[in-house]
Amino acid sequence: MRDAYHEELDSISDSLVEMARLVGSAIGRATTAMLDSDLKLAENVIEADQKVDELQHDLEARAIALLARQQPVATDLRIVVTSLRMSADLERSGDLAQHVAKLARLRYPDRAVPSDLHATILEMGQLAQRLMAKAAEVIITKDVDLALQLEQDDDEMDLLHRTLFQHLMDDRWKHGIETAVDVTLLGRYYERFADHAVSVAKRVVYLVTGEHADELQTDVQPEIQAVSEAESA
Amino acid sequence: MRDAYHEELDSISDSLVEMARLVGSAIGRATTAMLDSDLKLAENVIEADQKVDELQHDLEARAIALLARQQPVATDLRIVVTSLRMSADLERSGDLAQHVAKLARLRYPDRAVPSDLHATILEMGQLAQRLMAKAAEVIITKDVDLALQLEQDDDEMDLLHRTLFQHLMDDRWKHGIETAVDVTLLGRYYERFADHAVSVAKRVVYLVTGEHADELQTDVQPEIQAVSEAESA
Repeated sequence: MRDAYHEELDSISDSLVEMARLVGSAIGRATTAMLDSDLKLAENVIEADQKVDELQHDLEARAIALLARQQPVATDLRIVVTSLRMSADLERSGDLAQHVAKLARLRYPDRAVPSDLHATILEMGQLAQRLMAKAAEVIITKDVDLALQLEQDDDEMDLLHRTLFQHLMDDRWKHGIETAVDVTLLGRYYERFADHAVSVAKRVVYLVTGEHADELQTDVQPEIQAVSEAESA
Repeated sequence: MRDAYHEELDSISDSLVEMARLVGSAIGRATTAMLDSDLKLAENVIEADQKVDELQHDLEARAIALLARQQPVATDLRIVVTSLRMSADLERSGDLAQHVAKLARLRYPDRAVPSDLHATILEMGQLAQRLMAKAAEVIITKDVDLALQLEQDDDEMDLLHRTLFQHLMDDRWKHGIETAVDVTLLGRYYERFADHAVSVAKRVVYLVTGEHADELQTDVQPEIQAVSEAESA
């Protein structure tokens, strides 16, 4: 009976890894769709999010069934509850990738991102994808050092976000309001995506060490800090 | 033993109601702080969010202890798991209220919101507060009809959000990029806050009816719809 139980726990972990891989791929492809103004790719990303939602629903049902049938305690209980939270983070990340793709679709055949911000957005998209790939690896390996690395990578995202705001606030901005709104929302999507990847990794740290890794500090509204720092720069 | 158990379940529900009341008050006060450029009130809201975070941590610990000690099944298990999710929604709503307050603080002594958008933002703030008050009432009464009402109220938020975007995209916009960025983020904060209130209510519907009330459709990125509709208008 315990064996079937641990198999089920493993399968929940496998689903989390699959979700992380799907949303990591989604943010990468959404970024490409936006930078290339590729409508087909954008629609592909938008549709693919359904798979992530299905995985989450399925994972939740299995986690709740596991709680009911096996009534785990101590560490095992914590693993199941934490998995539910991680799946919520990953589902939300999928939504954010979808938001990027929807923006690409909305602006098609135009490009939402002006050419002087192309490189910054590309970097944000790649970093977001890398963060999620590392989060998946952390789920598999339970490597606390790697998990803590994600926070440093997230600092890099904050830096890119600040660069974006510096462009926006620059007097020489010549792309108009619509593009400013698009870029503001895009910056927010990437930053939130990164936050969720970091959050997944932190939850693994909590499982392994029992310590919270200041979980509540995940989103201290870096975009406002960015505005602030951009303006005082 | 079952009595102590149900008392503990009730106390979890009480904490959820308290969290909803705190974050409802916070979004109202943050809106006032922003519209009046009231620094003291803004700082008050920013500090008060700690209480919400503490309540959530405490609620989670009690929910997990309850799962371990009492090993509930069926409906009771669903109540505990759903409470964990609602607390996450409420904690996040608190963050969003704090974001509004931080924007007020950042722009002080200036006003982040230009006077021709004052009424719209006031309405968004009031509606957000009302939605959260209803969500609290739904937690207490488990009134499914009231819960479904929240979705209609949320349509009103989408309408206000669209109005905001129409202003932004209007050729006569004369408030510059910085204000456009502020207003874009504000719109997103209110809209997400409303989504979380609706989500809390939907989770109660799920508990009462066992049906999902298309939970996954909660955030279909209305701000992009708004941009789209504003532009085609």
